[in-house]
Amino acid sequence: MSKNLEELKGELRGFVAERDWEKFHSPKNLTMALAGEAGELLEQFQWLTEEESYHLSGDKKVSVGEEIADILIYLVRLADKLEIDLLSEAYWKIEKNAAKYPVEKVRGKATKYTDL
Amino acid sequence: MSKNLEELKGELRGFVAERDWEKFHSPKNLTMALAGEAGELLEQFQWLTEEESYHLSGDKKVSVGEEIADILIYLVRLADKLEIDLLSEAYWKIEKNAAKYPVEKVRGKATKYTDL
Amino acid sequence: MSKNLEELKGELRGFVAERDWEKFHSPKNLTMALAGEAGELLEQFQWLTEEESYHLSGDKKVSVGEEIADILIYLVRLADKLEIDLLSEAYWKIEKNAAKYPVEKVRGKATKYTDL
Amino acid sequence: MSKNLEELKGELRGFVAERDWEKFHSPKNLTMALAGEAGELLEQFQWLTEEESYHLSGDKKVSVGEEIADILIYLVRLADKLEIDLLSEAYWKIEKNAAKYPVEKVRGKATKYTDL
Repeated sequence: MSKNLEELKGELRGFVAERDWEKFHSPKNLTMALAGEAGELLEQFQWLTEEESYHLSGDKKVSVGEEIADILIYLVRLADKLEIDLLSEAYWKIEKNAAKYPVEKVRGKATKYTDL
Repeated sequence: MSKNLEELKGELRGFVAERDWEKFHSPKNLTMALAGEAGELLEQFQWLTEEESYHLSGDKKVSVGEEIADILIYLVRLADKLEIDLLSEAYWKIEKNAAKYPVEKVRGKATKYTDL
Repeated sequence: MSKNLEELKGELRGFVAERDWEKFHSPKNLTMALAGEAGELLEQFQWLTEEESYHLSGDKKVSVGEEIADILIYLVRLADKLEIDLLSEAYWKIEKNAAKYPVEKVRGKATKYTDL
Repeated sequence: MSKNLEELKGELRGFVAERDWEKFHSPKNLTMALAGEAGELLEQFQWLTEEESYHLSGDKKVSVGEEIADILIYLVRLADKLEIDLLSEAYWKIEKNAAKYPVEKVRGKATKYTDL
């Protein structure tokens, strides 16, 4: 059976309910947990050069995979609590960015135009 | 047609390629962009009480949705560059957490056992 | 002898030079290290209520003190590398904020006016 | 008269009291504000190479100085609320790090030994 974000949301609801942790998962607290995991992700990359960051060692890649999982997990939890649909928001944002950063204007330029 | 993370990955590849931004998207740089967006998400919640964080105003909810989208977008980009499968990592992490935090041991407790 | 930020800057220069770590301390890398420590600080507070956050246990307070120290250390390092004077910048920012948030306009209000 | 952290603490107390913002400044909320500013700092550096990060343009340096000021301001506020002495903590942490990372063992090495 193929997995998707909808299923992951359900899986996490079960995990949290079983442990009676719902009370800790206010949206405010979940943003802190998510940002905390983003901080741990940074720590994996802070002393690497950009070039090195493309070629992680096996151990490093396992650690990075774990941080990435934590971020997705808290993101799905937060979106669930706020009744926000993750994929719809992402597609809507891409559309907005496409209008904001027209190809002919920003091609190959960094600075303020580089954000997705 | 229903959207999923695989499609979103492809969509973002096109967006970046068209703009010739691939060169800026080293894994190291993408972790910074992701953490930067996590910081913007925090700013939406920092002066709200936990209670208030459950009941966002319409405007606030739009802004929060946008930050959440940005985080997902950079997370998908990063996983793509590192050839990491987001959903597999998340399911693997949940399994690991289930072993680490057995229900009977952590039920209703915060502190160190509360992390997903 | 009383310690101050100027002395701390010198102390850190010595610490880094002895270990030949200067090469890792680019401003870009130092911002990542600083944000990583800010993430660890968040983790100390994420499951506490606001009320609990005023009354930390002894152990917690030690951990928090350590995260706060790490943030100050990286902040001093970063300012040193960029030749920015920390205290002058802070005083200049307070002046700017005083003009931006006049007392009679923002008194007791949260939302967008609450930032320092 | 030369300024120091002790004076900055007093200055900020006055600023907050005048605006009746003390109620928003729980330690929990202040960690979020601090991490939010660290995120803004990251955004200033995310698309720069390490080399470029040493040579900021005039405009960029002004923005970076402002983010650095914000971080110091929230750090001083947080330490004040928790009755933690910033400089003592930093010196204590350096001593701890000196023992953890002996010169002969870590000289010139990155990876796990590079942290301050």
